[in-house]
Amino acid sequence: MRNSMNLNTPGLLLLVEDNADDEELTLMAFEQGGITNPVVVARDGVEALDYLFGTGVYCDRSPDELPALILLDLQLPRINGLEVLQRIKSSRKTQLIPVVILTTSNEQQDLVESYSLGCNSYIQKPVDYDRFLNVIQQLGMYWLVINSSPPLLAAYDE
Amino acid sequence: MRNSMNLNTPGLLLLVEDNADDEELTLMAFEQGGITNPVVVARDGVEALDYLFGTGVYCDRSPDELPALILLDLQLPRINGLEVLQRIKSSRKTQLIPVVILTTSNEQQDLVESYSLGCNSYIQKPVDYDRFLNVIQQLGMYWLVINSSPPLLAAYDE
Repeated sequence: MRNSMNLNTPGLLLLVEDNADDEELTLMAFEQGGITNPVVVARDGVEALDYLFGTGVYCDRSPDELPALILLDLQLPRINGLEVLQRIKSSRKTQLIPVVILTTSNEQQDLVESYSLGCNSYIQKPVDYDRFLNVIQQLGMYWLVINSSPPLLAAYDE
Repeated sequence: MRNSMNLNTPGLLLLVEDNADDEELTLMAFEQGGITNPVVVARDGVEALDYLFGTGVYCDRSPDELPALILLDLQLPRINGLEVLQRIKSSRKTQLIPVVILTTSNEQQDLVESYSLGCNSYIQKPVDYDRFLNVIQQLGMYWLVINSSPPLLAAYDE
């Protein structure tokens, strides 16, 4: 085990979202809120994990470059959000990255499982358009400006 | 083990802070930001744990009433913040409560240990007065209005 190293791309945000409308709205909210951080979009659970661990379609990517924040939908094709969360929080390399669940679900079961698996925050997507924009802007401001992210342990083995 | 029950006092906030000035500023920020949630202040680590687990000076309190959010300083008398965090996150009863570290420390070691022990967020207290007020207001808005708190497992044994 080597020492920790901060190898994350500063301020990179990984948005895991399969709904094209929600993706567009989220990116628009960031733009309107003056949040200029680079955003990578993964459209299902497999793509998200491939991005994080440098596998599959992302096998050429250096897995040492990690996002500073992950916004994670729960209902995802191929591998669902809870399993993605579990994988993120059980790998030494990714476990400290703040993960915000962003979902339409308000099921108590999803809330309990998400927090139990170690999500940092859980946001229910507002149905109302203006409120959605506002919540995404506040979320971006909180996690990308106010919160101090941990240095990522990219140099640890999984 | 019984089923989970939501026995938390809605919106109660536990502020663990030994610095009287910071306590006053935090409460003032909430007031000015229109955040009217009840706040309990614990002024050292022992008091915080006694409050949460219904022991010591709080032995007459029902430990089933839990806060919806904990703001936790790191440099605390008697038991330090990291140990308080470790106790919160290792008890089934309290482990899902969102904990925001609120500290003057910007030591990487504190960041890594706090996130490793399961803090939900880590805020470095701004030195500037106006910025301090602003950050606390945004923090309160995010965690008490935008974030969905988990139902608390107050009925589980520790």
